[in-house]
Amino acid sequence: MRQIAGDMDGPAIDGLWAVIPAGGAGTRLWPVSRSSSPKFLHDLTGAGRSLLQSTWERLEPLCGEHIMVVAGVLHEAEVRAQLPRLPLANLVAEPSPRGSMAAIGMAAAMLERRDPDAVIGSFAADHVIGEPEVFAKCVREAVAVARTGYVVTIGIEPTFPATGFGYIRVGDPLAIAGAPNGRQVRSFVEKPDETTARGFLETGGYQWNAGMFVVRASVLLDLLADVHPKLAAGLRDIAAQPARLAELWPGLTNVAIDHAVAEPAAALGRVAVVPGRFTWDDVGDFASLGSLLSEAAAVPGLRILGEVDLVLAKDTTGVVVPGSGRTVAVLGLDDIVVVDTPDALLVTTRERAQDVKSLVDLLKATGRADLT
Amino acid sequence: MRQIAGDMDGPAIDGLWAVIPAGGAGTRLWPVSRSSSPKFLHDLTGAGRSLLQSTWERLEPLCGEHIMVVAGVLHEAEVRAQLPRLPLANLVAEPSPRGSMAAIGMAAAMLERRDPDAVIGSFAADHVIGEPEVFAKCVREAVAVARTGYVVTIGIEPTFPATGFGYIRVGDPLAIAGAPNGRQVRSFVEKPDETTARGFLETGGYQWNAGMFVVRASVLLDLLADVHPKLAAGLRDIAAQPARLAELWPGLTNVAIDHAVAEPAAALGRVAVVPGRFTWDDVGDFASLGSLLSEAAAVPGLRILGEVDLVLAKDTTGVVVPGSGRTVAVLGLDDIVVVDTPDALLVTTRERAQDVKSLVDLLKATGRADLT
Repeated sequence: MRQIAGDMDGPAIDGLWAVIPAGGAGTRLWPVSRSSSPKFLHDLTGAGRSLLQSTWERLEPLCGEHIMVVAGVLHEAEVRAQLPRLPLANLVAEPSPRGSMAAIGMAAAMLERRDPDAVIGSFAADHVIGEPEVFAKCVREAVAVARTGYVVTIGIEPTFPATGFGYIRVGDPLAIAGAPNGRQVRSFVEKPDETTARGFLETGGYQWNAGMFVVRASVLLDLLADVHPKLAAGLRDIAAQPARLAELWPGLTNVAIDHAVAEPAAALGRVAVVPGRFTWDDVGDFASLGSLLSEAAAVPGLRILGEVDLVLAKDTTGVVVPGSGRTVAVLGLDDIVVVDTPDALLVTTRERAQDVKSLVDLLKATGRADLT
Repeated sequence: MRQIAGDMDGPAIDGLWAVIPAGGAGTRLWPVSRSSSPKFLHDLTGAGRSLLQSTWERLEPLCGEHIMVVAGVLHEAEVRAQLPRLPLANLVAEPSPRGSMAAIGMAAAMLERRDPDAVIGSFAADHVIGEPEVFAKCVREAVAVARTGYVVTIGIEPTFPATGFGYIRVGDPLAIAGAPNGRQVRSFVEKPDETTARGFLETGGYQWNAGMFVVRASVLLDLLADVHPKLAAGLRDIAAQPARLAELWPGLTNVAIDHAVAEPAAALGRVAVVPGRFTWDDVGDFASLGSLLSEAAAVPGLRILGEVDLVLAKDTTGVVVPGSGRTVAVLGLDDIVVVDTPDALLVTTRERAQDVKSLVDLLKATGRADLT
């Protein structure tokens, strides 16, 4: 029985299974994000729910209970606690991280057995999407395209020359019923330098690759079998004999879905794109996080994630995350980032937010991995 | 019996009583300094002892047990704990803050009764002095001048055009035996603006007023009696009947010793100065505190007060005070000030360090006085 939580844009999409790969360490969001409690388990927008819960709430109206979460075994209990409506059988616990292809491919192989015509939509657990109705319409179009055999990605219109995302080079329109905005993908482009990124924006015809894929489960696995036959076979073996998961998992090739399927399929003309005309953010670092928060009423230019009353600010712009119950006083700082947690404190600037990852590396290198 | 802890510059100075007014909130050093635990009770130099304890160690070789501490009743227990060699009768607990004249005058009135010829030297509990031998020589000269009836201040040679200190305008040399460097004081000058301060340095003949006074107890009280007769009488009344302290104290005039005695006495030609050729710092704010610390070996330009292992730093200059046991990570910051305590955290810049006081005012104004 399907449970539809919302009434957004017509009925749920028949035959669509959402897959949520809940992986990634989010080290650029240290000390909030830790290996024991990564980014997707946290409320990073002040919404009152975690990124994972927001992802669930966005997908449930489209898929009901047809949502599968793939998470590390370490985070299984917390995922279940955060998603009480997730059916027991729909949580795949990865014994260890084996890359996005193994994670999404595992779900695809399991769903292919349940429903040979299943279309899966893979949506990261830790992205922020602004307009759920627009998102829903976009997914509906992507499913229509995916039913014809394409790997469909959802592209995001670039708003600045980002160097932290890959790009999609968009080709000709497709004439597929129910998908007026579907277009061919010419190729995927790796993260560019800034000059190249500026060129993409001027030229037009490029979109950000947000890592969202909609595809028939069997198409995904068959395409994978062309390039990584052992990986595809391994995933299908595990789906056939779930008891062998722990035994077979470590032997799977660790590869990203982009390299394993999306790029080779694009070269074969098998990839399409539906433009996502919703706001999107991957909350990649504290600068990104700051841009998602509104300014504190009392302090123009300052964005606070957490209890506003814990922050005492004067002449300061930037982002403050009070997270230990202590008062955080900031005075005379521009574009600062202050993140307070019970056992670690971070102070940096929005400009250096990307480089927080290097501090995590430094902690590991100096014997303080317990803090990471 | 005198206990002489060190053997610095000859024997202790006969008849000299050191008076340590241990007052002042040190609000510019919040959140380390609090009203419940002010600046002088803290180790702010990494010396392994508090500023008060360092003051004691500097004075004990000169005065033995002849040291009197005047502290707020709230801090009496902690002062006793920090100074185990302080004789019980030598701690005066002020029922409430009544200004530096009442604090020092109270000690003077008590000592005048014990020894009519007593010379007192008043030295703040929260200043840092670099060369104790040079300091000792200077005090010895000041005592020689004080015995002749002068109020003697110890002047500090200015090293930059400070706007945070008052200045002493130095006059002609005095010809007093045992005090070759003693000079007349023409006048005291209030905290100048920067242009005026630059002028003082160019002109020469000005020294910083570090608030150190050496004077016969009876001279001090007699000079006070000229300007504030009721205050002088009140202090002598309490000294005669210590049981009436709580009753009489609240009626005493709240005035600074500079206004009550030093400035009027200078106008009468009764003030002398002995130049202090030692390094001196009043640890007025975190910028000043930073300049007293040496740079962290691993991070050039970063000064750390506290456990160095708690600081994780990259491309950062400034001052970090880890004070809650938590790791403090700083990345890409110039001239930053980060002060971590168990219940409050401060982030500012060295440039804005003076303005920390305004944050304390803001805490009080917004109902968070418990943090101040």
